[in-house]
Amino acid sequence: MSDKNTPKAIVLLSGGLDSSTCLAIAQSKGFDVYALSFSYGQKHSSELEAAKRVANLSQVSEHRIINLDLGGFGGSALTDEGIEVPTENDPDNSDEIPATYVPARNTVFLSIALAWAEVLEAEKIFAGVNAVDYSGYPDCRPEYIEAFQKMADLATKAGIEGTGVKIETPLINLTKPKIIQLGLSLAVDYSQTVSCYQADEHGLACGQCDSCLIRKAAFESAGIADPTRYR
Amino acid sequence: MSDKNTPKAIVLLSGGLDSSTCLAIAQSKGFDVYALSFSYGQKHSSELEAAKRVANLSQVSEHRIINLDLGGFGGSALTDEGIEVPTENDPDNSDEIPATYVPARNTVFLSIALAWAEVLEAEKIFAGVNAVDYSGYPDCRPEYIEAFQKMADLATKAGIEGTGVKIETPLINLTKPKIIQLGLSLAVDYSQTVSCYQADEHGLACGQCDSCLIRKAAFESAGIADPTRYR
Repeated sequence: MSDKNTPKAIVLLSGGLDSSTCLAIAQSKGFDVYALSFSYGQKHSSELEAAKRVANLSQVSEHRIINLDLGGFGGSALTDEGIEVPTENDPDNSDEIPATYVPARNTVFLSIALAWAEVLEAEKIFAGVNAVDYSGYPDCRPEYIEAFQKMADLATKAGIEGTGVKIETPLINLTKPKIIQLGLSLAVDYSQTVSCYQADEHGLACGQCDSCLIRKAAFESAGIADPTRYR
Repeated sequence: MSDKNTPKAIVLLSGGLDSSTCLAIAQSKGFDVYALSFSYGQKHSSELEAAKRVANLSQVSEHRIINLDLGGFGGSALTDEGIEVPTENDPDNSDEIPATYVPARNTVFLSIALAWAEVLEAEKIFAGVNAVDYSGYPDCRPEYIEAFQKMADLATKAGIEGTGVKIETPLINLTKPKIIQLGLSLAVDYSQTVSCYQADEHGLACGQCDSCLIRKAAFESAGIADPTRYR
């Protein structure tokens, strides 16, 4: 994997189902993978432990965890102790932006990936954003990713030289069951991933938050036994 | 300044001449200022001390310093111990990107400002980027700032609701002498600012790096005694 001529890709790795699938896709396309995770004050830090497991199992070239205290800004149920993680999936509110939205999170993560990509001379940044199940998040939509790409092309030395990094979002239009089927075809071990917004210190999922409900339903719909470790 | 109805602005504050002027401009326009600085592995950390002094003197509502180890990525003379800070200003190379360019730095800083702006419901982000003296930096050009704005409008809850933050770059087309004259008219105390890429622990400037030479020439050209503290 570490051949000098192998093209490099950064994969944003949260340790959840989507990003772990994304990592497998990047490797299946022949990229030498540099995984990037963030400790950003999220309540569900066992996600980071999952990211470490997945990075190890996948034998990535490097896994960096950047400490970034976005939690200090507040404003999200995922980082703010004063806001509760929603435990009901209310379809009537599907047009609203969920309380679990973290301000400008993908922008911050992609920007830091962009900095690392420039130094590594990476060809791609893979991000597991998905516009189907999380359509309420503004920074998961294709038009946002396109705008980020245009900005990135103008922002960097490589970008203005025409050799800038390209953002890849292979899951953006896939449903969760499709993502799972794709991941299984690439031998992703989903028992090692954590999607729960409030997993405990052992990585055991609550089975009740939005993220758990979506994941559970997806395995069911894909006709696959759910390997998630619940508490 | 902290009236509930006063509009808020985030000011990216490095502690240098440009960003300190920018802060004074934001205050002169009636904004309640939230200053944002970064400890990103820069060699010239006395810049951060300058940022603290300027934030204090200006009585900003809040000053946050975010720790962010971009230096770990390497690739710039400002953060990489293996790359020397250039000490000659070579006009023949003015089209090249300087060795002091930090990968995707403004993108990362603006992104984090965007996250904070969303939580604060700030109207503006002021950034002291300047396309005149530093035309070699890709992320200091107006077309880059415009692309960032478009991306930001799609990235955030406020942006898609039409109440998103606007990026202000009041210095972008000003020459350094003009910036100094503007700052002095707003009572900026430039003796408290540090521009030097390799200032010592007391904030004393080297007088020889690109940044010192540009600053020195600017005071001369503005016909103003240089208040910079040199070692």
